[in-house]
Amino acid sequence: MSRQVDTFTFVVEPFQEDFTGQITWGTLGNLLLRSANLHASARGFGRVLLDGGVYVWVLSRLVVEMSRRPHTGETFTISTWVRSVYRSFTDRCFTLTAADGQPIGYAYSIWALINKDTREAIDLQRVMNSEFEACIDAGRPCPVRHPGRVRVKAGAPVRTIGTYYSDIDINNHVNSIRYLEHILDLFYKEMYAKRRLQRVEMAYNEETYCGEPLSFYVEPAADGNVNVEVRKNAGDGDATRGTVVCRSQLTFCDE
Amino acid sequence: MSRQVDTFTFVVEPFQEDFTGQITWGTLGNLLLRSANLHASARGFGRVLLDGGVYVWVLSRLVVEMSRRPHTGETFTISTWVRSVYRSFTDRCFTLTAADGQPIGYAYSIWALINKDTREAIDLQRVMNSEFEACIDAGRPCPVRHPGRVRVKAGAPVRTIGTYYSDIDINNHVNSIRYLEHILDLFYKEMYAKRRLQRVEMAYNEETYCGEPLSFYVEPAADGNVNVEVRKNAGDGDATRGTVVCRSQLTFCDE
Repeated sequence: MSRQVDTFTFVVEPFQEDFTGQITWGTLGNLLLRSANLHASARGFGRVLLDGGVYVWVLSRLVVEMSRRPHTGETFTISTWVRSVYRSFTDRCFTLTAADGQPIGYAYSIWALINKDTREAIDLQRVMNSEFEACIDAGRPCPVRHPGRVRVKAGAPVRTIGTYYSDIDINNHVNSIRYLEHILDLFYKEMYAKRRLQRVEMAYNEETYCGEPLSFYVEPAADGNVNVEVRKNAGDGDATRGTVVCRSQLTFCDE
Repeated sequence: MSRQVDTFTFVVEPFQEDFTGQITWGTLGNLLLRSANLHASARGFGRVLLDGGVYVWVLSRLVVEMSRRPHTGETFTISTWVRSVYRSFTDRCFTLTAADGQPIGYAYSIWALINKDTREAIDLQRVMNSEFEACIDAGRPCPVRHPGRVRVKAGAPVRTIGTYYSDIDINNHVNSIRYLEHILDLFYKEMYAKRRLQRVEMAYNEETYCGEPLSFYVEPAADGNVNVEVRKNAGDGDATRGTVVCRSQLTFCDE
């Protein structure tokens, strides 16, 4: 095992693909999270015990850029490492590689360590030690454009949905990747045949619990990007816009 | 390789579980379909070429009975075989077994072989040969109660949803297992904590294409069962009840 980097091999299984025959973004996102989890656990910081409390990692940002997504039956790898640690956050990078060694994508994520019960983040300097520091690989390239600040001014949601049993994961809130699936569902299926979704950016603000309705506000942005803001418990008008749970930017390109 | 039975090993991966920590019904259903697919392909009847046409298997019925669902990190196996072939349909059985050899569930399914283009089923006697016949295992036990006839008289749907990009699989229609996920979402999350969903029965009638709305009609049935009928393109009243795409019966039990 490399001290810094782990590489995991996956195969795209039947029923993990979308109608185009490529792995769904949802499955891909969950494999990134799974790789992060395996990498951290193998180094003893999957969860952290401190002052009698249990601390777990929560995803704050996720950016995924794919030049193509692997198709059914294809083998590919995900490599992941920690790039840096600063105050309350840590940066984790990923490279996705085809079986022939060609890179097919990169991802960049930001995580906070929060108390499982109080949900409060702690200063990561408190858990820093030489062992943790030895895991950091600051130099390895991960050519992902850093996430920007997504702002949506649209006054009315394009869709409001309920949240149900299938949306909820073992942490008892709407699964991080599930938001992305709901966001992708805002666009016509034909869009995914005509244009290629090349980059996905997610910024997480708040947790959503089962039953809280989610409203989706959509706005075109510069360079052909689309910005999406997801709010929970929002009403129809501006007065009751609810609480932002996440923001997203999608980048489609013409092939 | 056994001539009749294949056994596949799976591990429940993180993010494949529901909030209770057990594999989701959706993932489980897709693993059953994947096992069926692998078993048929290994014997040369994954898809059938006949008279210049391509014939593919479509799922007509699926019944899954679980005494418990495996939890995250747990290894389990799915064994599958063909039990019988009659006119237009074939019966396929499954057993699900824990790592210690204890059975944890059984499943039973009925499939038709249809022309990929015309969607018409063919008489399976036409593709029957000694090789296919040698694969059939009529005697192996699969103690699943056979599916009944689900009838729902409810006049108004409890929910109507749109169908979107994420619902559609590589066959360009709503994925068979996705219906089940939407059906499970009709019930409060707390229900899944309090009662155990022990048996799921699905009967498929028609395909749903992206954008066609689905309406869910729910009715309590005998023995604590719940019947669900899913109709596409249904209106609000009895006059426009649309087309039945599938029917389902769920059996919850108190632990």
